[in-house]
Amino acid sequence: MDHSGRLRRLQASLADHELDALLVTHLPNVYYLSGFTGSAAALLVAERACILFTDGRYKTQAKQELQKAKVHPVSIVIARQAPAVAAAEGFAACRRHAHSLSRSLSLSLGIEPQAITAAMRDRLAAVLRGRQKVRLRSAPPFLDRARMVKDAIEIARIRRAVELGASLFSTAREKIQPRVREVEVAAAMEYQARCGGAEGMSFPTILASGPRSAIVHGRASSARIPRRGFVVCDFGVILGAYCSDRTRTVHVGRPSGEARQLYAAVLEAQLAAIATVRPGVTAAEVDAAARRVLRQRKLARYFTHSTGHGLGLEIHEAPRLAAGQSQILEPGMVVTIEPGVYVPGKWGVRIEDVVVVTSSGCEVLTPTDKELLVL
Amino acid sequence: MDHSGRLRRLQASLADHELDALLVTHLPNVYYLSGFTGSAAALLVAERACILFTDGRYKTQAKQELQKAKVHPVSIVIARQAPAVAAAEGFAACRRHAHSLSRSLSLSLGIEPQAITAAMRDRLAAVLRGRQKVRLRSAPPFLDRARMVKDAIEIARIRRAVELGASLFSTAREKIQPRVREVEVAAAMEYQARCGGAEGMSFPTILASGPRSAIVHGRASSARIPRRGFVVCDFGVILGAYCSDRTRTVHVGRPSGEARQLYAAVLEAQLAAIATVRPGVTAAEVDAAARRVLRQRKLARYFTHSTGHGLGLEIHEAPRLAAGQSQILEPGMVVTIEPGVYVPGKWGVRIEDVVVVTSSGCEVLTPTDKELLVL
Repeated sequence: MDHSGRLRRLQASLADHELDALLVTHLPNVYYLSGFTGSAAALLVAERACILFTDGRYKTQAKQELQKAKVHPVSIVIARQAPAVAAAEGFAACRRHAHSLSRSLSLSLGIEPQAITAAMRDRLAAVLRGRQKVRLRSAPPFLDRARMVKDAIEIARIRRAVELGASLFSTAREKIQPRVREVEVAAAMEYQARCGGAEGMSFPTILASGPRSAIVHGRASSARIPRRGFVVCDFGVILGAYCSDRTRTVHVGRPSGEARQLYAAVLEAQLAAIATVRPGVTAAEVDAAARRVLRQRKLARYFTHSTGHGLGLEIHEAPRLAAGQSQILEPGMVVTIEPGVYVPGKWGVRIEDVVVVTSSGCEVLTPTDKELLVL
Repeated sequence: MDHSGRLRRLQASLADHELDALLVTHLPNVYYLSGFTGSAAALLVAERACILFTDGRYKTQAKQELQKAKVHPVSIVIARQAPAVAAAEGFAACRRHAHSLSRSLSLSLGIEPQAITAAMRDRLAAVLRGRQKVRLRSAPPFLDRARMVKDAIEIARIRRAVELGASLFSTAREKIQPRVREVEVAAAMEYQARCGGAEGMSFPTILASGPRSAIVHGRASSARIPRRGFVVCDFGVILGAYCSDRTRTVHVGRPSGEARQLYAAVLEAQLAAIATVRPGVTAAEVDAAARRVLRQRKLARYFTHSTGHGLGLEIHEAPRLAAGQSQILEPGMVVTIEPGVYVPGKWGVRIEDVVVVTSSGCEVLTPTDKELLVL
């Protein structure tokens, strides 16, 4: 991972955004820049300095992870108060120093408004109050934008995560049968993920059978799989810090003609969306492609979520593939394509893959046959 | 769960805090009041009305969960924009209605400043701008305070979670041996948790062996357990929405005299802290009791975190058992007691239990013998 290159690029761009420093509080961004994975951190990035603030629990880990990430010029401060507060105080202290050099200097400290609570911003403002020439400013989401386009190492990591994730479906296939509890299937898949090296699941495993398949986020429950009906399996792992995400819907028992038609419609919508993905199209166009197919089948009103989302260090990140999203796709972006149809109380179907935008189109990661699987 | 009683109590207390409504955005608080478990939600609570705002993914689930929680007067709005934004607009619309009744009325909408991003507060302020008589106000954390004291049903749930959590240690004991990867031990424990009905783990399982035991939050890694040394196992489940948390440290191979002394010191510190827990003492006093024992053994500087934390719907909630914390313990509070000693590069030991504050002292949940276990 080129943590230090990212850090240098951020440092070089601060002046363009009229920031003297950026206080990075979004933990995936802290990892992106420094390799640190602790749960309490604030990274203070100035043009010529970078300091990681964390707490006593992470003293040893911070040192090890920063060394491993080869971001040696980053120094570590073990703070007694909240890391972001310590960072603001640190900045103010440097500010006093700078102030003694030049009375006219006014410094801007950028914050990540999407990743700081209103309470914390108030607290930082209080810390900086009285230091009249330090201004707290909402920084634009340039780190989130940078993270949208993955480099080769990141794509390789996501590929590995998706491969491991995809392999869990064979376990699901073996386990899914009438009377088995949904959670037992999920447990077996998660066990396999961990044994395969996953740090964890990228979200609570969804295993929704029978009428529960109509619940879009139907987490594996203690419900038993019925003798007949759809089972939606939506699952992902975190491997090497990167997420995978995949959905397969199977049918237990003999599917009705209507069930087959429903499945075929969702698959057609998914393939249509995938076929749309290439550099230059907007996120909204991909969403529209899936929705168009379902509209023709009079199913559009049962497709109650967006067509997909970016993924990487987070399971949901930019861009969002939904109506009105004008973001233009670029090579290196990684997104899910996951249309679904849900008829409350009756059934639901969703099919999802992760695709990487290439120079001419897209590549589906770990493609498999997606014809309706009857168990 | 008495969701509707909690909701009524909140509604009755709004006037005391000079709020016309509270916008609940902290998801554990949304669950506490309504029983809804979705990942996108805002609950608008006014004295005589309550509306849950969520998105299309949760249409079916919201209806089912609110019915199950018996909070029938809560209505559901499926929003196209962010739930909190939809809620603020809903409030402003009611406001217009009220305004037409009385031109002198000024309404206060409370927000949870710890559970709303700075960006979202700005967005809500923008939504309400122009509606001069609607004010956005940071509400005091009265829900977090209410949640500190658990009722009998909550304690019963936590007890079940701790029982299931404690049972995982037998799997750890069986699996821990030289050359086994840490993550395999964690995988087996997590599998058992899921089969036991857990919704998931309450935090990433910590399994830190040999010198890694000095890493306070040493998540299970692909490292192999060495032939000799401590293994810190810190693990918890979520069962029935409530968390468990427990740490046991074992020794692989024959421990040195120094290792035995270290373990004994941490155990003594933990027992001293537990003996201090009773109604009327402050959180700081419990922390001081553990620290005092370790100071006598000249180990206090290696105890780099606080002695414990509240737990319930969240793995970390109020009160915090640390220096300077003046919170007075009350019957029904549930906290962890978990002193530890960590010598970087060498070893670490932590011992943790969950205790419930009773009328006269405290009860350790699922108590076990804690003498040093040599595997």
